[in-house]
Amino acid sequence: MQNSRQRRPERADREVFMHQGRHFLQIPGPSPVPDRVLRAMDMPVIDHRSAEFGELGRTVLEGSQKIFQTAGPVVIFPSSGTGAWEAAIVNTLSPGDRVLMVETGHFATLWRQMAGRFGIEVDFVPGDWRRGADPTVIEAKLAEDKARAIKAVMVVHNETSTGATSRIADIRAAIDRTSHPALLMVDTISSLGSVDYRHDEWKVDVSVSCSQKGFMLPPGLGFNAISQKARAASKTNKMPRSYFDWEEMLKPNAKGFFPYTPATNLLYGLREAIAMLLEEGLDNVFARHQRLAAATRAAVNHWGLEVLCQEPAEFSPVLTAVLMPPGHDADQFRQIVLENYNMSLGSGLSKVAGKVFRIGHLGECNALTLLGALTGVEMGLSVAGVPHRSGGVDVAMKLLEQRPQGNASPHLKMVGT
Amino acid sequence: MQNSRQRRPERADREVFMHQGRHFLQIPGPSPVPDRVLRAMDMPVIDHRSAEFGELGRTVLEGSQKIFQTAGPVVIFPSSGTGAWEAAIVNTLSPGDRVLMVETGHFATLWRQMAGRFGIEVDFVPGDWRRGADPTVIEAKLAEDKARAIKAVMVVHNETSTGATSRIADIRAAIDRTSHPALLMVDTISSLGSVDYRHDEWKVDVSVSCSQKGFMLPPGLGFNAISQKARAASKTNKMPRSYFDWEEMLKPNAKGFFPYTPATNLLYGLREAIAMLLEEGLDNVFARHQRLAAATRAAVNHWGLEVLCQEPAEFSPVLTAVLMPPGHDADQFRQIVLENYNMSLGSGLSKVAGKVFRIGHLGECNALTLLGALTGVEMGLSVAGVPHRSGGVDVAMKLLEQRPQGNASPHLKMVGT
Amino acid sequence: MQNSRQRRPERADREVFMHQGRHFLQIPGPSPVPDRVLRAMDMPVIDHRSAEFGELGRTVLEGSQKIFQTAGPVVIFPSSGTGAWEAAIVNTLSPGDRVLMVETGHFATLWRQMAGRFGIEVDFVPGDWRRGADPTVIEAKLAEDKARAIKAVMVVHNETSTGATSRIADIRAAIDRTSHPALLMVDTISSLGSVDYRHDEWKVDVSVSCSQKGFMLPPGLGFNAISQKARAASKTNKMPRSYFDWEEMLKPNAKGFFPYTPATNLLYGLREAIAMLLEEGLDNVFARHQRLAAATRAAVNHWGLEVLCQEPAEFSPVLTAVLMPPGHDADQFRQIVLENYNMSLGSGLSKVAGKVFRIGHLGECNALTLLGALTGVEMGLSVAGVPHRSGGVDVAMKLLEQRPQGNASPHLKMVGT
Amino acid sequence: MQNSRQRRPERADREVFMHQGRHFLQIPGPSPVPDRVLRAMDMPVIDHRSAEFGELGRTVLEGSQKIFQTAGPVVIFPSSGTGAWEAAIVNTLSPGDRVLMVETGHFATLWRQMAGRFGIEVDFVPGDWRRGADPTVIEAKLAEDKARAIKAVMVVHNETSTGATSRIADIRAAIDRTSHPALLMVDTISSLGSVDYRHDEWKVDVSVSCSQKGFMLPPGLGFNAISQKARAASKTNKMPRSYFDWEEMLKPNAKGFFPYTPATNLLYGLREAIAMLLEEGLDNVFARHQRLAAATRAAVNHWGLEVLCQEPAEFSPVLTAVLMPPGHDADQFRQIVLENYNMSLGSGLSKVAGKVFRIGHLGECNALTLLGALTGVEMGLSVAGVPHRSGGVDVAMKLLEQRPQGNASPHLKMVGT
Repeated sequence: MQNSRQRRPERADREVFMHQGRHFLQIPGPSPVPDRVLRAMDMPVIDHRSAEFGELGRTVLEGSQKIFQTAGPVVIFPSSGTGAWEAAIVNTLSPGDRVLMVETGHFATLWRQMAGRFGIEVDFVPGDWRRGADPTVIEAKLAEDKARAIKAVMVVHNETSTGATSRIADIRAAIDRTSHPALLMVDTISSLGSVDYRHDEWKVDVSVSCSQKGFMLPPGLGFNAISQKARAASKTNKMPRSYFDWEEMLKPNAKGFFPYTPATNLLYGLREAIAMLLEEGLDNVFARHQRLAAATRAAVNHWGLEVLCQEPAEFSPVLTAVLMPPGHDADQFRQIVLENYNMSLGSGLSKVAGKVFRIGHLGECNALTLLGALTGVEMGLSVAGVPHRSGGVDVAMKLLEQRPQGNASPHLKMVGT
Repeated sequence: MQNSRQRRPERADREVFMHQGRHFLQIPGPSPVPDRVLRAMDMPVIDHRSAEFGELGRTVLEGSQKIFQTAGPVVIFPSSGTGAWEAAIVNTLSPGDRVLMVETGHFATLWRQMAGRFGIEVDFVPGDWRRGADPTVIEAKLAEDKARAIKAVMVVHNETSTGATSRIADIRAAIDRTSHPALLMVDTISSLGSVDYRHDEWKVDVSVSCSQKGFMLPPGLGFNAISQKARAASKTNKMPRSYFDWEEMLKPNAKGFFPYTPATNLLYGLREAIAMLLEEGLDNVFARHQRLAAATRAAVNHWGLEVLCQEPAEFSPVLTAVLMPPGHDADQFRQIVLENYNMSLGSGLSKVAGKVFRIGHLGECNALTLLGALTGVEMGLSVAGVPHRSGGVDVAMKLLEQRPQGNASPHLKMVGT
Repeated sequence: MQNSRQRRPERADREVFMHQGRHFLQIPGPSPVPDRVLRAMDMPVIDHRSAEFGELGRTVLEGSQKIFQTAGPVVIFPSSGTGAWEAAIVNTLSPGDRVLMVETGHFATLWRQMAGRFGIEVDFVPGDWRRGADPTVIEAKLAEDKARAIKAVMVVHNETSTGATSRIADIRAAIDRTSHPALLMVDTISSLGSVDYRHDEWKVDVSVSCSQKGFMLPPGLGFNAISQKARAASKTNKMPRSYFDWEEMLKPNAKGFFPYTPATNLLYGLREAIAMLLEEGLDNVFARHQRLAAATRAAVNHWGLEVLCQEPAEFSPVLTAVLMPPGHDADQFRQIVLENYNMSLGSGLSKVAGKVFRIGHLGECNALTLLGALTGVEMGLSVAGVPHRSGGVDVAMKLLEQRPQGNASPHLKMVGT
Repeated sequence: MQNSRQRRPERADREVFMHQGRHFLQIPGPSPVPDRVLRAMDMPVIDHRSAEFGELGRTVLEGSQKIFQTAGPVVIFPSSGTGAWEAAIVNTLSPGDRVLMVETGHFATLWRQMAGRFGIEVDFVPGDWRRGADPTVIEAKLAEDKARAIKAVMVVHNETSTGATSRIADIRAAIDRTSHPALLMVDTISSLGSVDYRHDEWKVDVSVSCSQKGFMLPPGLGFNAISQKARAASKTNKMPRSYFDWEEMLKPNAKGFFPYTPATNLLYGLREAIAMLLEEGLDNVFARHQRLAAATRAAVNHWGLEVLCQEPAEFSPVLTAVLMPPGHDADQFRQIVLENYNMSLGSGLSKVAGKVFRIGHLGECNALTLLGALTGVEMGLSVAGVPHRSGGVDVAMKLLEQRPQGNASPHLKMVGT
């Protein structure tokens, strides 16, 4: 006998519900684009060789440096984040090179596959998808590598598929302890602009990112922040490349221009988005994400569900992946939530498909939006017949009720202004 | 000693919070404008004497009839709803005329003052602002009026200041029982497009409305739906008028044009908004408002606060006005909510200033948006130190968890398509 | 035999042409709305009782003063310009009052009709629609009025139906010579923000305007700039009014608020439009309109057509009305231009219907846009078989080729910043 | 002695002029984005794994096929057109492969350089940048290649740097005459959606394109239309690739999805742009470009200037490159036009830098816009002191005066609907 709570209504009826009011886009990216950013993009395109464009170009390139917390160059490609992954590889490595990567989840696995396609030999540290990259393992691997054959350590900062944030500062320290010369390349695709990230201070060589997460833009831009060491590597590596070649970018970038037609309207949006991040202050942005994430986990715990990430020091400020109890399908649950409450949640990917759903709480998100989203999850659990303890939203409210003290670090204050 | 929970942070800190993420506009109008409507308005203005304009004009005039549920003419002024109030008066009444009005709240009082300015003698039935207009009182007043001196009964359908919705069908029946020839003029400013309202079936003579509530548009348009009897009255009444004159409107309206430059871009938005209302179906729109209102009242009751409206049959589907406990200032509470949660609530007006706050749940609103708003109220009560029982949001969630059966009345189905 | 040049193609074919590329809106208002202004309007509506709104309100009220060149109050109604006409009348005059008006064209005639509807006795100086109001006639009329019965002189600054701009400074001087106490009320609907206009310096008592001409906004806002003398008159006059009552406006305006829901999104646009006018500099704006108008007249003269306005000192900087040769219908010509070149020209109104067409060159207009429009007129004359001498565009190009010297008056510079 | 006509005014004065009114963007791409397209993009981003997205994806993929006139697959990358060049190379060729390319101009040279970076051996037929690729030379080259070592013939359809359009149908025929198995790969970056182009009929193997020309979108999308033969080649070629790999794209594309986050908002715009092209009808779009181009050349010829392209059968419908007389700098001329008339013209690139300027007349362009642009060129020539004969605009007007007969080819009608 079918549970009546799970009955799916006729299509026409569902459609009406699905489109009532504002959609809650609570996937871990693309994140909702603020009206200011959308409207900034909604302007006539200009001549990409004009002085006016040069000013735009310089503004977004310099602004991006502030977000990466770097004094070095940042390049911006018309591409997705996947393209920026490729740029990191093809500019620094040569076919046959050996690298160390860590299986933090789906996206680390995809990046590894990409490296393989370019003939890179990957030492892939296996993982259970429930924690970040382990600095001690990386240290051990590098220490073993007496021949210094490993050319790069490649880590995902915030693993979007699992909600675990690797501790890059600790990984840096681990590498330093071995005095290994490997490059450190970090995927900051879903962390940049949401989670504290310091390209220069942590001596990262290539930071990879994109537009549609912390930058609160539509998808379409890929970023690389580049250290001097990485740039030096790019001058001698042997990987054929053209579109993603750094040097081709860096020359015209010096005056705010690009070697081929850039995605002008996305750059309009980027200018506005960077302005918004700096107006709020990076430290406030990071603190906000931490609060929203803590409230989300508190609700999940109260419901009696399990957060996928098992390492408290690595809980993601950007998203929370939640394990469904055995016998309950996460995608069916997500469909019920979509049809009943007009909210999109993130799906479980590959290994955890059907087993987890993901709640995004990044970018243009605040307490009431998150709490609205959590009511949708709690009601959805009920309608889907998933065993849980009600009251999760109440617990989250308690945590979000008080505004935190403004204890921004002086470090960030300086960078942010 | 000041309660630390009520401490207001320094301005810069507050500003950051006030602008984080999406603003929740939960006042009882202007209601949030859907993206589709805003974008429809964001188009080049056209020649208001062109064939293209005529098509636009006819579309919005016919569409408006569907929303008023009338086969008779609707006129649209570039004005606020206040202007549409004035249009109702100056087109039907003469200086010295006597009318019957009911003090349902602030807006009924303002309309009465306006009538006074035009030399109308108003028999103003006093009220306590906690219920709608009483049909029996109206019946009695008309029955007494043997001389048939009362030219019009003027009632506010949904009193935006109190959250009480007068029962227009019952008032119509009351009038009919007296066989009194008075016109029935109804302010539907905050009800039209949100609460079931039937201009023709209820034999209303003038229905007054505006753009920024159920129509989900920015402010700037005023509407009159006009019965044959009202139009006949307009041919003989003696009130000087020009801008708001119906006849001047109705002639060019027949072909979709206007006697003076219309607010073209708002009409673009109106076309889109009417399309959205009819896509959802008026019956579904009304049912949605009823559900959201019921959930709101359930939360308020659970908190131990009092809903201003005391007559269950007259609870507003559009807004809920909530009484603050003695000793607690509603505006201070609203300020705390604004600063901490980036949400606007409606203030108490005139007689109830500082004593009530109002939660709007109209127009572009759905379950998650409302529940997010209610979390803001519940947290705000806590931060403001207002005694209350927590768990109101939970109660609201219970009511909104299930999607209702699609039991739209056949009546509405026909009108809506 | 039908002239094949005038053959109208089948509808489908015409439609394709009519919609190719960007429409040229060359009517004398609504004028094209700049992208910056449209995008400023395309933002969420805010609480009209919030501090944020108050700041918006103060900004647009103060900004409007700069455009009217007045230190006194400006009120802004959600209305068309027609509503602002009514506001001028109902706030200053009483039924039975006598006023002096001048038949400059269609709009002066409409304003006169409106005055009549409010019981005003109008001394309407007849005109031939080919020039502005004659200061000497006004002087003579006032000099005759020994009893000082005339309460107001009401003049249209730029008559949109004819393209003649009355010389308000001269009219002011004429009134002053008679020491007559009549109010001076001026319709600046199609001149403000395009033609030099000085409310204070010219001692105008009520200046009437709207949003959709020099302000480059969509229609929907009406303006009154008010002298102390006009305001004093408003305290004693005897005209019933409510919506358009100045005192009701002026009280909340002091803090940036409005007595009823204002047209918020149009005010967003107004803020942006005023910023644009002041960025360009009012003096530059006025000079630009003069240049474009001179170029247009040069083309018309070259074509051998006649400019409707016969008084060079009164040629309008905003529009040029052109007489069609006998036997040629202006509306048929306009239709050909619309279908072939996707351009809207203004029609002849009432007395000159079918006899003139009007070229708007106001607001968001520059040399290339105007020249593109003039090519459409010249080609249209040819296709319509209207006798003319080709080369009009060349003549206009000669005039627009050189950029004028920046000889802005110090007066304007001060006002503009 | 400096020519006073060339005096550049002070910066502030220039800035005012540069920003008056609407900018004329007359570069050969990015082309002006229609309001409909910009507004379609200005909508909230959606979940790229949702059913709603799948529908969007299928719509744009199928729509793109209609524009390429192919029944085979089209892939869409988040990239510029340069990225789509790279995709064509890396999916079909292997390091060491030999290809035949033709130096039609700057972009052909860049594509050749790119091929070199991937280890392709390019037989680059030299050219004088004044005509398209010569089919007879291609035929001869292939006939010579007895060993069938040439893997691909790679040609630019419309060379954006010169305004010469190679005759792809003739090139196809030339190849066929040799029975050579080389792939035919064509850059349609600035032709697609503006110039008749038939991927299937002309048996092109890879057609490369982008968003910012005939598609009238902002930059940010790259396209490949792919023949079965090309796809077969992609299964065996030996070039490392990942981001631009076709197979990765084609699998999820079958259901409207993408292997990594697509540029959602650009896809919204693409859906609208394709709809606009099909509403007008591809045949009408092509005819419109031909007319505008012919009018432009007529003006240039009348001025006594030289069109860069010397082969009438290859005049570009998309842009016209104009040679400056000796002693006159094209970039100085362009700067004068920008400052005086707020119009951007295209610069000469590399070999012809400073020697030519380019007039774009593609995408959202119609007769009046083009004529306005031509007045800017003619006036600019005068202000810059470039010897020329006036009257070029008149000549263009004559050509654009009459609307052409609707003689669309049946072929296109079928494809277009």
